[in-house]
Amino acid sequence: MKAELISVGTELLLGDIINTNAQYIARRLADIGIFVYYQTVVGDNPQRLKEAYDIAFKRSELVITTGGLGPTKDDLTKEIAARYFNRKLLLDMDSLQKIETFFKNTNRTMTENNRKQALFPEGSKILPNPNGTAPGCIIKEGKKIIIMLPGPPKEMAPMFEASVMPYLEQFQDCVLVSKVLRVLGLGESLMEDKIKDIIDSQTNPTIAPYAKEGEATLRITARGRDKKEAEVIMAPVEKKIRDRLGDNIYGVGNTSIDEVVAKELIKRKLTIALAESCTGGLLAYRLVRNPGVSAVLIEGDVTYSNDAKMRRLNVKKETLGKFGAVSEQTALEMVQGIVKSSNADIGISVTGIAGPEGGTAEKPVGLVYVGLYIKGKTMVRKFNFPGNREKIQNRTVMNALDWLRRELEHMN
Amino acid sequence: MKAELISVGTELLLGDIINTNAQYIARRLADIGIFVYYQTVVGDNPQRLKEAYDIAFKRSELVITTGGLGPTKDDLTKEIAARYFNRKLLLDMDSLQKIETFFKNTNRTMTENNRKQALFPEGSKILPNPNGTAPGCIIKEGKKIIIMLPGPPKEMAPMFEASVMPYLEQFQDCVLVSKVLRVLGLGESLMEDKIKDIIDSQTNPTIAPYAKEGEATLRITARGRDKKEAEVIMAPVEKKIRDRLGDNIYGVGNTSIDEVVAKELIKRKLTIALAESCTGGLLAYRLVRNPGVSAVLIEGDVTYSNDAKMRRLNVKKETLGKFGAVSEQTALEMVQGIVKSSNADIGISVTGIAGPEGGTAEKPVGLVYVGLYIKGKTMVRKFNFPGNREKIQNRTVMNALDWLRRELEHMN
Repeated sequence: MKAELISVGTELLLGDIINTNAQYIARRLADIGIFVYYQTVVGDNPQRLKEAYDIAFKRSELVITTGGLGPTKDDLTKEIAARYFNRKLLLDMDSLQKIETFFKNTNRTMTENNRKQALFPEGSKILPNPNGTAPGCIIKEGKKIIIMLPGPPKEMAPMFEASVMPYLEQFQDCVLVSKVLRVLGLGESLMEDKIKDIIDSQTNPTIAPYAKEGEATLRITARGRDKKEAEVIMAPVEKKIRDRLGDNIYGVGNTSIDEVVAKELIKRKLTIALAESCTGGLLAYRLVRNPGVSAVLIEGDVTYSNDAKMRRLNVKKETLGKFGAVSEQTALEMVQGIVKSSNADIGISVTGIAGPEGGTAEKPVGLVYVGLYIKGKTMVRKFNFPGNREKIQNRTVMNALDWLRRELEHMN
Repeated sequence: MKAELISVGTELLLGDIINTNAQYIARRLADIGIFVYYQTVVGDNPQRLKEAYDIAFKRSELVITTGGLGPTKDDLTKEIAARYFNRKLLLDMDSLQKIETFFKNTNRTMTENNRKQALFPEGSKILPNPNGTAPGCIIKEGKKIIIMLPGPPKEMAPMFEASVMPYLEQFQDCVLVSKVLRVLGLGESLMEDKIKDIIDSQTNPTIAPYAKEGEATLRITARGRDKKEAEVIMAPVEKKIRDRLGDNIYGVGNTSIDEVVAKELIKRKLTIALAESCTGGLLAYRLVRNPGVSAVLIEGDVTYSNDAKMRRLNVKKETLGKFGAVSEQTALEMVQGIVKSSNADIGISVTGIAGPEGGTAEKPVGLVYVGLYIKGKTMVRKFNFPGNREKIQNRTVMNALDWLRRELEHMN
């Protein structure tokens, strides 16, 4: 079944609000194996809305609309659908009563134009709206189905779950199972190079690479008659990909490198302390945004000035003078200093040039040294990161955490 | 000029990501008086993308695409546009060189498919991308204009401002001047209440309030024959609004409370040191993301454990025992400790319960104490923030910085 979403509303066209409904519905349809081929946003205009229906039904069987079910004369979604399917609008007494009750219960005055919300194209299946005054409705004619939902996400989503999902599941003869692999240490194009032949030779499952901020992801989607069959179809291809990408795969699904590392530290009861310069607290914050990390994070020192590096971390004045704040030696003394004062099992230090100022030919913007102390061993790595200040800081944090993740894996 | 947006990408159709680009572009076009009539999302499929171009140019003169400029074979936006306009794809040596330099500077291997990003339809105007490897481009043929932009918002938005806005302004016969006032200390609805009569009585300039994460903004847009006339029309209304909102307005345009504070500290050469618990480095990082802050930020201590609070900040064991880590007394000793050890002009401390765990009836999730040392005076404020862990951390940081901003203003 090919599906298409039509979001109706001038506020979307003006950019006043963001189209979260389209994302919500698209994701839920993907969950039950209905693929959305197009999403369209159109204003509250009868002619353009009619044309949007025409175009949509030429290329899709299922059209889901959001918005335009309100009481004002600008709200036209049902009216134009009635015209498209050549049906009369009829008053539904049951819906009218519910609307009257809703107004009574919320101590508001019902105006005459609210009656409009109880009008539906003849033969519609009406979808109750427990969270507002606009019920939704479904028209099915031959192979064409239109499902009209209210615009406010807080009304749309519960209606979608309660009425639309059960309605749609009856039409599905296959199930899609989808899995996202998260990759660090390879860019999107390098990752794709490594598995290009697998991607090209596959139709079920399909494999789609994406670039995310500082990392790459890979979505594998398998189709089967039921969940089990889809999983069986996916397994060998996933294994092949995992063999190629190895430990560059750091996680599955909706996670992040900081979450993976935080969970691992909590699980293993390994304490950690951080000494940051150019990332300015971002490394600490990324760990702290994960609940429960207080059990393992002893402290983070944002030693931004040389004074703080010496005072807090015992970095030697001579080291700063001879090699500079951004150097292997400073990164080394920083991580040694934070481990010594905190007595943590693991230490990470970061010093670098995040830019836009401060770069030289010898030490360009993007040069970063990361120090890692783990299992009594101290190591320093040099990185050169692309991008602006924010990207350099972000990539520094992701790569520092990814390094720690790999070390923790090899501890097994 | 009728405009239409086409967002290209399977990840949008699957609901993996939300279409923030469409909102951004729609809003910016509205600012210069270009109305978007349709927004379409279509996948990385040559046939369907071609049809989307056909439909779009039947009803609009200006088509702006986002996405599909990447290096992989799924990226087809330029290729299909070349086919639509019947033009060859030519290699742009200048762009190729920039891409090669980008890879060289970042020590990454450029793969063969990255060359694809330097191919453009013959006769294109090329739009540089300082934040990534995919330049954008414009094709103008008769009345038809297509503008192709990269998908990642952090690349798209700067390109839109630097290259697309100046390009489009030449087609407009009136000029819109727009100004965004940024407001902290009042919620969106409270702000709207205060100026509702001004909003309702105005058509030129128009006034649009928005809620942003933790703050509110107000966009004033004036229309005139030229920039000067628009500014003259805006001025008295802006003054009226400023009179009503007073020092809740902390900035104008594309700024943030951390930028305002960082600039002010740098200008006044006032040093600062931070002691954070529940925000875990976010406060330090917000300051550090602003270039040049190294001149004033001495250090930040993320004293997440009680041990670190005592060792680093000299918080008394008895204070932690008697009042707890989340208390007015602890916040006070934290800020005194960080100021004493760093010798900074200004100190901020934060301790609170960011949740989701750790709340009690007496000290619920969202309870935060902020300490501020300035001009020899130490103060502590208590806050109760709504929302989840991330929101509480974010609001804590914004309110702490806003407090400092107001104190700095009153120092004049």
